[in-house]
Formats: sequence, structure tokens, C-alpha cells
Amino acid sequence: MSVTYPAGFRAAGVTAGLKDSGNKDVALVVNDGPFDAAAAVFTSNRCKANPVLWSEQAIRDGHLRAVVLNSGGANCYTGATGFETTHATAELVGELIGSGAVDVLVCSTGLIGVHFQRDRLLAGVREASDKLSSDGGNDAAEAIMTTDTHAKQSLVRRDGWSVGGMAKGAGMLAPALATMLVVITTDAKADSATCDQALRSATAATFDRLDSDGCQSTNDTVTLLASGASGIEVDVVELTSAVTAVCQDLAMQLMGDAEGSAHDITIEVVDAASEADALEVGRAVARSSLFKCAIYGEDPNWGRVLAAAGTTKATFEPHQLDVAINGVQVCTGGEPDESPEKVVFQGRAVHVKVALHAGTRSGTIWTNDLTEAYVHENSAYST
Amino acid sequence: MSVTYPAGFRAAGVTAGLKDSGNKDVALVVNDGPFDAAAAVFTSNRCKANPVLWSEQAIRDGHLRAVVLNSGGANCYTGATGFETTHATAELVGELIGSGAVDVLVCSTGLIGVHFQRDRLLAGVREASDKLSSDGGNDAAEAIMTTDTHAKQSLVRRDGWSVGGMAKGAGMLAPALATMLVVITTDAKADSATCDQALRSATAATFDRLDSDGCQSTNDTVTLLASGASGIEVDVVELTSAVTAVCQDLAMQLMGDAEGSAHDITIEVVDAASEADALEVGRAVARSSLFKCAIYGEDPNWGRVLAAAGTTKATFEPHQLDVAINGVQVCTGGEPDESPEKVVFQGRAVHVKVALHAGTRSGTIWTNDLTEAYVHENSAYST
Repeated sequence: MSVTYPAGFRAAGVTAGLKDSGNKDVALVVNDGPFDAAAAVFTSNRCKANPVLWSEQAIRDGHLRAVVLNSGGANCYTGATGFETTHATAELVGELIGSGAVDVLVCSTGLIGVHFQRDRLLAGVREASDKLSSDGGNDAAEAIMTTDTHAKQSLVRRDGWSVGGMAKGAGMLAPALATMLVVITTDAKADSATCDQALRSATAATFDRLDSDGCQSTNDTVTLLASGASGIEVDVVELTSAVTAVCQDLAMQLMGDAEGSAHDITIEVVDAASEADALEVGRAVARSSLFKCAIYGEDPNWGRVLAAAGTTKATFEPHQLDVAINGVQVCTGGEPDESPEKVVFQGRAVHVKVALHAGTRSGTIWTNDLTEAYVHENSAYST
Repeated sequence: MSVTYPAGFRAAGVTAGLKDSGNKDVALVVNDGPFDAAAAVFTSNRCKANPVLWSEQAIRDGHLRAVVLNSGGANCYTGATGFETTHATAELVGELIGSGAVDVLVCSTGLIGVHFQRDRLLAGVREASDKLSSDGGNDAAEAIMTTDTHAKQSLVRRDGWSVGGMAKGAGMLAPALATMLVVITTDAKADSATCDQALRSATAATFDRLDSDGCQSTNDTVTLLASGASGIEVDVVELTSAVTAVCQDLAMQLMGDAEGSAHDITIEVVDAASEADALEVGRAVARSSLFKCAIYGEDPNWGRVLAAAGTTKATFEPHQLDVAINGVQVCTGGEPDESPEKVVFQGRAVHVKVALHAGTRSGTIWTNDLTEAYVHENSAYST
């Protein structure tokens, strides 16, 4: 149930003292091979943190031996000093595991614009290296938590091979990923191109459709490491399927633990002219503060759904739209239909279905509601 | 200090019983001439309310004799019945003041997707017509309030002529206007084209730069009526100046009364390659829930400013950005500069300045913070 379940991986998570809480804050995942194919995708935010600037280069040859991650500081907008910290971290990991620095991906998460103590980080890396073990996955998953209330891990088993994963992220979850760090491991035998294709397909269908609060992080990284230790060669279809399942599971865990949220909202847009149209409408609804507040109040306010749809360029006639909330058809053809009072809210899951009557394509976006707890948590984060 | 200060206008505000509160909910503003030039701008939301669909046609000839407004229901997504209600309202006003229905602009505000009682509305219109008076501006301004905590009015006096205005709107304030109804009157003599040009210039520089919560209403309307009763002919420069001053004053009143807000935030973006770039960056910051929560918590979290800027396509180098908050230069060249602890928060006003170092243009967006009170108010609005 962790990144060390697939054969060929060791991991560790330790306390380096970067966080005031004294919780674990440095994680290390090492691929012992025999192969070291890898892929990674990063935030599309133009303001990228130092570890992202480093890691974008490190992954270029499609090979990685290790991923080192820290919480307790994003190392973003920390200038040349911050980049040197990232570089020194990769150098040290390389030295400790006997690889080059460029075979080491670096991930950081925490506050932007704050220097953290390089010495503590490097000492933590040494300790993590000492503690590497084939059942260290749980510790690693704990060490990357920030405001997460629990560690997120996933595992998919196939015939003779498996895919494991861990993730952190509980806010700023937005398209093109978002303060989300994810490490996925597999003992399947797959080359770099196959890993890259599988990872891009998987993230496009999962993390990229999760938009918790519309904000986009500077640090998001999702990486896939393939050890080949199972000896089983997989094709891109098999690998994509398993990696997508792990990403989907982790994405739902992230949604369920989003900062201060009370509801997990699935926005399904159907009968669209294109999938892009469906996703554009879904995202617009997911980013409407008024809609998100209404769901928090368990108010099936479909007017806010349509008002958000109206801000998009998707193909549809405004007065042909249908909306269903939790299965109750509250709006048909742009007019009130069943009474909103019939809508039953139970537990966290809410389902909103919007029909555009413009085609046959569909798309789903996942989001959370906007709550007083979200505001509280995010108004007090750095203080 | 109201829409009836300029000569040639009468107004009234009455209780028709559309709102459970028993507060005034129908307003009527009549231009007694001698001229009836007019202009109007509407929401750019594609999902337009019935009164907007009507009023877009009514203004086409550049002449209006009256504006009738109701709170207590947006008359949006209410189908053919809703449109008939709008039409009947315009017909009745026309009959009462001796004009055609197409000389009557109709505005509605309140919940989307809810039918309200046409009989009550029409009875209210009759009563308002009976009560029309040259000092009825205050009553009219009260009658258009929804969640506004006070009526918003403005007046600019020039040599022998004046411009008066009233506005409602306390949430959903977003570009291209937003659940904002504004009526502006002037006794200057100006033709329809001059009114149109003045109104478009004024709204582009004021209401269009106010983005309270990123949500865009289905009902926004801003209209300008010119009676010519002062006998003084004005050119477009003079009229634009006075109308802009009234719009600016009303926009700041809207910002200061935005639902649940605790701070009024001015986001000034300078050294941009173009004004459009400056406004794009300003809007991205204004729409970051994380940034808005930080300001609520009086946390000068400049990382959230830069993370929002990074989601735009504006021309800049991510590592050349400067940020100042309330005059303290917290980030220079993408690195921490003065200590955020030096930033002093006092009262509602917060000033954020972002320098892009990409040119010489600038632009300002106004927004509010995101508070627990906003969430509370908007999760309980319709219930």
C-alpha cells in the first residue's frame, strides 16, 4: 500500500526540524533498479519553485535514481540561495546512493518566499539515507504532509507487478496539478517513453481535473519511477491503466482531505460539443465561489451553476441547459423543473450534472465546497 | 445626492411585497425631458436574465423615458413566463407615463430561477407611478437594495448641470459589471451617441475593474439618462468626466459594502508591457482565494500574489517581480526583501503593488478579501 510495495524501491521519512511541529519533514525514495526509467510532470504555473526548475532538467534524459522531498518550505522565490539549496540536496543524495546529482528529482512544499535552514535539510537527507528500507513507504508518505490530515497512499496490483503511490496536497489543488507532490513507483519493466506517455495520460484524466480552490501552486510535481525489478515488461496500455488507477485513487484522497472542505463535488458536464467545452464549463462552475458556498450550505442553488456556465465560451444555447443536483432535475431547458426542496444532501458527496445540448461529448471536474473552515485555515496559515 | 437631483427627473420607491422582509422592492425613475437620450451597458454573461434580454432591445434606439427596477427576484431562467412578466412591466410603465413600452428599461435583482408574483410587481409599479416626485431618489435607491447594508448614491455638480447616480450590488461584483444595477441621470443636453460613449468609457475605467468575488451576474445593467433640462449642452469629454466621477464613487461604495468583506484591496500593477497585461495580472491576484484569505487574516503573504501572477500570460520574467504591500517592499526581484512583519494593516484599505518590469503601462483592479462572513452569507442566501 505504499511506494515501497513494488520491488526495487526503498524509502524513508525523517524529522529534520524544518517544521515547527516536529513532525517528519524529509522523505527519500530510491530506485534500486535494475532499471531506472522515469517520467515527471510539473506545475504549469510560470512562477516555478527552485526544486521544479532543477527537476525539469533532471528528468530530461528520462532516468531517475531517487526523489527527495521536503515539507516545511516551498523553496520558491528564494533566489540564488534557494537554488543552491536544491542543488546541494540533489548532490548529497547522489553522493549517498552512488549516482549523479542529475539522477535525483527534488520536491519541496510549504510557504513561498521563506528561506529554510539548508544545514537541517542536508542533515535530514543523511538520516533518511541511513534509514532507507523496503518498508519505509509509510514514513515517506508522512514526511511530505503539510496541512494534510492523513497520509495518502495507493496501490494497484497486476499479475506479477504493481504500482504504488503517495501524495500530499490539501489545498491549492487546481488544473495542471496544484501544491501536490506525488511519487509513483512500479516494478514493471518500461522504458522512459512508455513511462512518460503513461504518466501524462494518467494525470490528464485525474489530477488535472481536480480543482479544489482554483489556485495553482508553484511546486507541483508528479513523478513515476520504474525499477523493472519484477522482470515483467508492460506495454503503454497496461502501464497507463495501472498508473491511472493509482492517480485516480490518490486524487480522490486529495479531494476528500482538501483544506476545510465539507463536501466533495463531482461536476459532470454532458452533451457537449467537445470534451474541452465540457471541461471548461465544469471548471467555471468549480471556480464559482458563490456555487461553492451554496453547496457548503447544502443549498441546491442551480442559478449559480448556470451563471458560472454563462461566463464560458463553450458551445450552448443559454436557454437549453439542464441541471440536476444529486439526481433531482432542478432545471430543464433553462427553466425551473423539479423543486430544489427534493434534493437530498447526505455525507460529503455531491453530484451536479449539467447538460449543454450541443453534442455528445462529456467531461468531469472534481472540486470542493467553500467553507468558513477553509477561510480560517488559509487566513492563518503563515502566522 | 440622488438620481432626482438633476433637473427633469422624478423617482419613487415602494414596497410591492416581493421580498419577505417587507422592505421597499420596486423603484421607478422617469425622465420628464425635454430630451430623452440614453445609453446602457449590460452583463457580458451569456446567461442573461429576462429584463436584460428586454432592455438590450429597448436601448437600441438610444432613447429611454423610464427605468423600472425590482429587487426580490432576478427573473432569470424563468422561461417565457418570466419574459412576459418583464414585458408586462414595461407595458404598464409606458401606459402610466405616456410612452411606448420600448422606452422603458427593466432591471431585476434577486434569486435566479424563481418566479415572483407578477400581480404584486405590477401593483407596485402602479403605486410607484403614483408616488413619483422630484425628491423620490432616496426611496428609489432603497428599493433596489438586496444584501446591501445601505443605499448607494452619488452626485457630481458642474456649472449649471449635474450627474446623479444610484447603485445596488454587494456581491458577484466582477468584470463586465456584476449583480450591479446602476441608474445615472443628468440634466445636461447630450445626444444618444455622446451618452453611449461617455457611459462606456466610464464603466470601463470603474465598474469593469471591480472584481469582488470573481462571479459574474446574469442581470447587471448600468444606464445613463439625459433629460437636457438644464439647457446646457455638454461635449463627450465633459460628460465622460462627470459620469466617470459618479461611477468611480459608486464603485468604491460597492466595494466598501461587498458581502461579508473586511478589507477593500487595491491591486496596482505597474511597469507592464500593456494595460491589458497589468489588468490580467491584477485580476488573477484578485481572484486568488488564497490571497484573499491571507488579506482577511492581515497576513502579507506575497507568495500568493506571485503564484497568482504566474497563472497569467502577461509579459514578465518570474524572477524580476517586485511586490509591495501597504508600502512595504516585501519582495524585490523575486526574492524576499523587507520583512513582512513591517507591514501595518489599519482599517479596511489594503494596497498591493506589483511591478512586472516589462514596460511602462499600469492598471488597477479593486477587490475584497474572502472572509468567513462571506461564506456564511452566501451559503445561506436562498434558505
